[in-house]
Amino acid sequence: MKWTKWLGVGVGAVALLGLGIILGHFAIPKGTDPPAHQDLDMEVLNTVMGQLEASRIRENLRELAREPHLATSPQDEELVQLLLQRWRDPASGLDAAEVSTYEVLLSFPSPGKPNRVTVVSPTGNILFSCRQTEENLTGEQGGPDVVPPYAAYAPPGTPQGLLVYANRGTEDDFRALQSQGINLNGTIALTRYGGAGRGAKALNAAKHGVTGVLVYTDPADINDGQSLPNETFPYSWGLPPSGVERGSYYEYFGDSLTPYLPAKHSSFRLDPATVSGFPPIPTQPIGFEDAKSLLCNLQGTLAPTAWQGALGCDYRLGPGFRPDGHFQANSQVNVSVYNRLELRNSSNVLGIIRGSVEPDRYVMYGNHRDSWVHGAVDPSSGTAVLLELSRVLGTLLKKGTWRPRRSIVFASWGAKEFGLIGSTEFTEEFFSKLQERAVAYINVDIAVFANATLRAQGTPPVQSVIFSSAKQVPAPGPRGLSIYDNWIRYFNRSSSVYGLIPSLGSLGAGSDYAPFLHFLGISSMDIAYTYDRSKTSARIYPTYHTAFDTFGYVDKFLDPGFSSHQAVAQTAGNVLLRLSDSLFLPLNVSDYSETLRTFLQAAQKDLGTLLEQHSISLGPLVNAVQKFEDASAALNQRMLALQKGNPDPLQVRMLNDQLMLLERSFLNPRAFPEERYYNHVLWAPRTGSVATFPGLANACSKAMATAPGSTAWAEVARQFSIVVAALEGAAATLRPVGDL
Amino acid sequence: MKWTKWLGVGVGAVALLGLGIILGHFAIPKGTDPPAHQDLDMEVLNTVMGQLEASRIRENLRELAREPHLATSPQDEELVQLLLQRWRDPASGLDAAEVSTYEVLLSFPSPGKPNRVTVVSPTGNILFSCRQTEENLTGEQGGPDVVPPYAAYAPPGTPQGLLVYANRGTEDDFRALQSQGINLNGTIALTRYGGAGRGAKALNAAKHGVTGVLVYTDPADINDGQSLPNETFPYSWGLPPSGVERGSYYEYFGDSLTPYLPAKHSSFRLDPATVSGFPPIPTQPIGFEDAKSLLCNLQGTLAPTAWQGALGCDYRLGPGFRPDGHFQANSQVNVSVYNRLELRNSSNVLGIIRGSVEPDRYVMYGNHRDSWVHGAVDPSSGTAVLLELSRVLGTLLKKGTWRPRRSIVFASWGAKEFGLIGSTEFTEEFFSKLQERAVAYINVDIAVFANATLRAQGTPPVQSVIFSSAKQVPAPGPRGLSIYDNWIRYFNRSSSVYGLIPSLGSLGAGSDYAPFLHFLGISSMDIAYTYDRSKTSARIYPTYHTAFDTFGYVDKFLDPGFSSHQAVAQTAGNVLLRLSDSLFLPLNVSDYSETLRTFLQAAQKDLGTLLEQHSISLGPLVNAVQKFEDASAALNQRMLALQKGNPDPLQVRMLNDQLMLLERSFLNPRAFPEERYYNHVLWAPRTGSVATFPGLANACSKAMATAPGSTAWAEVARQFSIVVAALEGAAATLRPVGDL
Repeated sequence: MKWTKWLGVGVGAVALLGLGIILGHFAIPKGTDPPAHQDLDMEVLNTVMGQLEASRIRENLRELAREPHLATSPQDEELVQLLLQRWRDPASGLDAAEVSTYEVLLSFPSPGKPNRVTVVSPTGNILFSCRQTEENLTGEQGGPDVVPPYAAYAPPGTPQGLLVYANRGTEDDFRALQSQGINLNGTIALTRYGGAGRGAKALNAAKHGVTGVLVYTDPADINDGQSLPNETFPYSWGLPPSGVERGSYYEYFGDSLTPYLPAKHSSFRLDPATVSGFPPIPTQPIGFEDAKSLLCNLQGTLAPTAWQGALGCDYRLGPGFRPDGHFQANSQVNVSVYNRLELRNSSNVLGIIRGSVEPDRYVMYGNHRDSWVHGAVDPSSGTAVLLELSRVLGTLLKKGTWRPRRSIVFASWGAKEFGLIGSTEFTEEFFSKLQERAVAYINVDIAVFANATLRAQGTPPVQSVIFSSAKQVPAPGPRGLSIYDNWIRYFNRSSSVYGLIPSLGSLGAGSDYAPFLHFLGISSMDIAYTYDRSKTSARIYPTYHTAFDTFGYVDKFLDPGFSSHQAVAQTAGNVLLRLSDSLFLPLNVSDYSETLRTFLQAAQKDLGTLLEQHSISLGPLVNAVQKFEDASAALNQRMLALQKGNPDPLQVRMLNDQLMLLERSFLNPRAFPEERYYNHVLWAPRTGSVATFPGLANACSKAMATAPGSTAWAEVARQFSIVVAALEGAAATLRPVGDL
Repeated sequence: MKWTKWLGVGVGAVALLGLGIILGHFAIPKGTDPPAHQDLDMEVLNTVMGQLEASRIRENLRELAREPHLATSPQDEELVQLLLQRWRDPASGLDAAEVSTYEVLLSFPSPGKPNRVTVVSPTGNILFSCRQTEENLTGEQGGPDVVPPYAAYAPPGTPQGLLVYANRGTEDDFRALQSQGINLNGTIALTRYGGAGRGAKALNAAKHGVTGVLVYTDPADINDGQSLPNETFPYSWGLPPSGVERGSYYEYFGDSLTPYLPAKHSSFRLDPATVSGFPPIPTQPIGFEDAKSLLCNLQGTLAPTAWQGALGCDYRLGPGFRPDGHFQANSQVNVSVYNRLELRNSSNVLGIIRGSVEPDRYVMYGNHRDSWVHGAVDPSSGTAVLLELSRVLGTLLKKGTWRPRRSIVFASWGAKEFGLIGSTEFTEEFFSKLQERAVAYINVDIAVFANATLRAQGTPPVQSVIFSSAKQVPAPGPRGLSIYDNWIRYFNRSSSVYGLIPSLGSLGAGSDYAPFLHFLGISSMDIAYTYDRSKTSARIYPTYHTAFDTFGYVDKFLDPGFSSHQAVAQTAGNVLLRLSDSLFLPLNVSDYSETLRTFLQAAQKDLGTLLEQHSISLGPLVNAVQKFEDASAALNQRMLALQKGNPDPLQVRMLNDQLMLLERSFLNPRAFPEERYYNHVLWAPRTGSVATFPGLANACSKAMATAPGSTAWAEVARQFSIVVAALEGAAATLRPVGDL
């Protein structure tokens, strides 16, 4: 029966062929499949975590803080070259790095004419002179590259008058002085840091007739009361008596001559004489030892309890010195400031690792480079971390071990200390490109304020990725806790959604995330290690912006062993990789619901009745918050469904676009016309007291004293509509994309 | 030798299996591949072209124009239902359709108190009364739903004064009258349509002391001089002597009470009394027969030649009537207007066909629905086309034959005649969603002005897709030409890149594309069929905005047979499908280079010396244009390379994003603070005479008469920088996405 045998052979052949076809079609992935599905690789993540070395961060810091590197100084330029070199290193560098330079208006003391604060007798004799430099305690405070203490952008002038003490120089403080019957006209006001922005002190003072301002840091605010040389640096972490906090006294951020335009050489520039935002009167910061000589000799009413500090005397208000004190009666204080405005070339350094799958999605990581003096903590602790992180990633990149799914852009900003200038000019220059493609902005400015716990600030969508990273990274210290478990012990809140969780702070304009969040609407965060607030009430690390912010200060007091620096590098690096490598962007938009509800509840509780009285019903806002909540929850469900199985890369892309762009929908360039760059309806500065949507809080605060139907109440209604429209617009972007 | 036999069998089996595996892996496309690569299917395109029927468009128009459908009237609401019904039809409808309603401020004559224009003798006798309605020539001009002629938003009032003739009511025209020694205070000005916007005539008049304005259409401007009843409709296409053009006299667009906010019920509203942009003095349009009675009886100086028209007499300037004419000496004209502002609910109807591959990419096609009276041409010719197009596409959709790659959104706008209100409110409500996802906006308002040739306006990126479609669609008429080949005979230009091509006009604010282009930065276009300008100089089709714009008018005079309507449907539909279905978006960004170069050359030629004198070098602008040119050309090269072979869908998506978002990068919300919604730096209204970047042209025009260093010259420098920054920002978005 040969035909049956051939039949059998034929059937067998067909079966084999068919089996082969089936195997070939389904079982072997096509060569093109894996890249588009590239996802976070835990092995890579763990490798990176393990390769970030505390000792290398320490060596970075030593080099970075070796010399002062004031913005646009030769040393700052040297650091530009250092960064370029590291980022172009063939073994550990990035794909590309470049420098981009802007011509910006800075402010410096006059080299030949140092600022001076003196006490002058009625006959014109100089009775006392404040220090013009800080004391050379470690051999690093002398030298020509240490810029003397000054208030950047304070105008030149030599006002002289009776001294008053004005606490923190807030509007309320000056009003309190006036209500004491003190005539402020022509006086010099001594204020202390804290409570109001630097520039605001001078603005408020000038409004009340004051002609010159002095600012000092009180030991109560910075040293937990300690003030003796042997109680302060270099013996402890405290601010020494001659220490002076420098800073920018400009009211806005960004280059002052080119608002909303990148400060290129040929850009249109405002006339400096017409620019608003500079302090109107000469201002000079001094150390607390000198402040003591002045303040503890004032006559007049005893200052309120809340105005008292730790200089070791009872603070009085003035005006003028008491006859039985150190100075003759009617002696005055002379504040001679010779600051000059100067156009300077400031550089940003940018480096990129191109994404393998979605190179048009940018995860940005930035830190400023310029300092006031050595800037070991501010900002070089951050730069040291940045260099170590980019080294580890660059090494993996150059080895061919790894390439991120999305592009990683590292940035070293210039001239931040003069008002976030480098970062702001960058956002103005690349506005469209960044708005369309930036997934998130990670800022690590000061990496370590102190070594107790993580401190993170950010917008709600980044909360979950920070938590995930914090859970994975071990915290320094003996307890064997994760960053997360350590963090929650210091900063926690009770979330209606999650129960007890660490608190994510909100972002103001303290560092370079400001233009990214407020102007561009990019989800942003700032990561650092910070104090145990049960152990110190220091307003900030005590040598902040002084000539004592040195490598030795960090190495000895802030983070010996640099384990907190390493923890920040690991946490920030972990977040960075999750954002750059995860198939689905780890941005949780529904975490905004909790924020919106909290704002809504505050509005209902504290403003509800008032608004109703002025015919503004909270109904539309309640609806809008609900719509957002529903839309974001539904989107999460769709994402979960998509995550099961093998999602199509285009579908993942479309969902990721919704996540990335959500933050943008809260922008409204017409919401706050009197502000600059503040376009984000949820995070603009809040001056009103109710902890709700800032535009609404501020408008209500202003309208409260006015009659119904006033312009101020119309503005409340307008701000209300702006919030409703923003929330509804945001919710609309989260709905299924194919829905009307 | 049994083992050799088994060996042979074994080898054969392995070979078969291997062959099967190879076949299965390479020869059979994976089930998931085709969707992501879905591209334009010429068969579908041709099918759609073939299924668009002129006779159906005609029947649509008959139904749409059967009754007047003034914005928010019951008949307008009926059309809303008609659209909903068609778009929800199970056999030929879309995926979904919905209505969205806004509460907007409209303006209407008072029902019980019709506006009236009379000639009054010195003793108060009424010597003459203009018509209060148009003549009922076809039986369709009577009836309570025909809104009498009026100037929407003109305020109520009853001014009376001597009549003057002010040509077109431009600022120059009124100055000319004054320079003739005519005292304009308290006069009534008779003007003719054209030359300046409607609202501008009243604004200019009021500035010169005029207390009331009349507007008419001169036969010279509309009928090629003809004016007799037997020379005009219903005997020809011309405007009959009693015909009056209605229109909005509001200066801006969008709902006047809710600028930059969607006009929801609870939205913040401005106080109408404080709103700017309404005409300041009573205004009323009249027919040319009545205008003749007034104008041809004026005394005074002979008007300039350019001011003469075709009413059949010598036009004089006034003031006042000549004693030997029809009216007593010193008779005055009384303009009694009783218009009322009213809040009304205006609806947009939206329909969507969800994209199969990229549902989050929207190709938008819109047309307004509301008319002044029957609105057969304006806008129902467009609505008729819209309905036929959506029917054909809906039919293919419901049959399962086709689904577009990207989503198609059809929109029927409300209250356009009152200032693009429906479309503007829509863009305010969905600002973020649209900006992030809208590929292009196609507007077909009036589909057929006349039946000679295509007329298209748009931004450069859409030029090529309009050309492609025009080449594919046959033009009506005997010559067997394509739309393109017919078009080029009427409107052509010499392109430095392409040689002789049809001219694409630019987009102002004449129809609903305005908020999409100027406010949202979405590449937009307007498509219609229009006149042979060698045959008529009519400013617009003669029965525009009158009660004679009827189905009969279209059927008999404008487009008998409706072949031009069909041609528009086919062209617009062809463009729509190319945008929705092509794998690579047919947006040619490098076509912007020619526009930029033309603007640059005009600036160099006409402003170069002047700018240099004021220390503004054109160098940065030259560089910026070059950068754009280079970047867009390089992108085209990358696209060509990608198009060869089998491009990865994510790579296509990334490139398409660059194409789609290019238009956005020309937006700057701070460029023109005194304008409303005009944020597009290249297409904002140009008042300056030099045909260059509008901000620059306008600023130079204002600065010309001022001294160096003036605020006006600073504004020139600022506008210059704005353009440079926009072009550089745009170029930056076109570079390889992985570049810094």
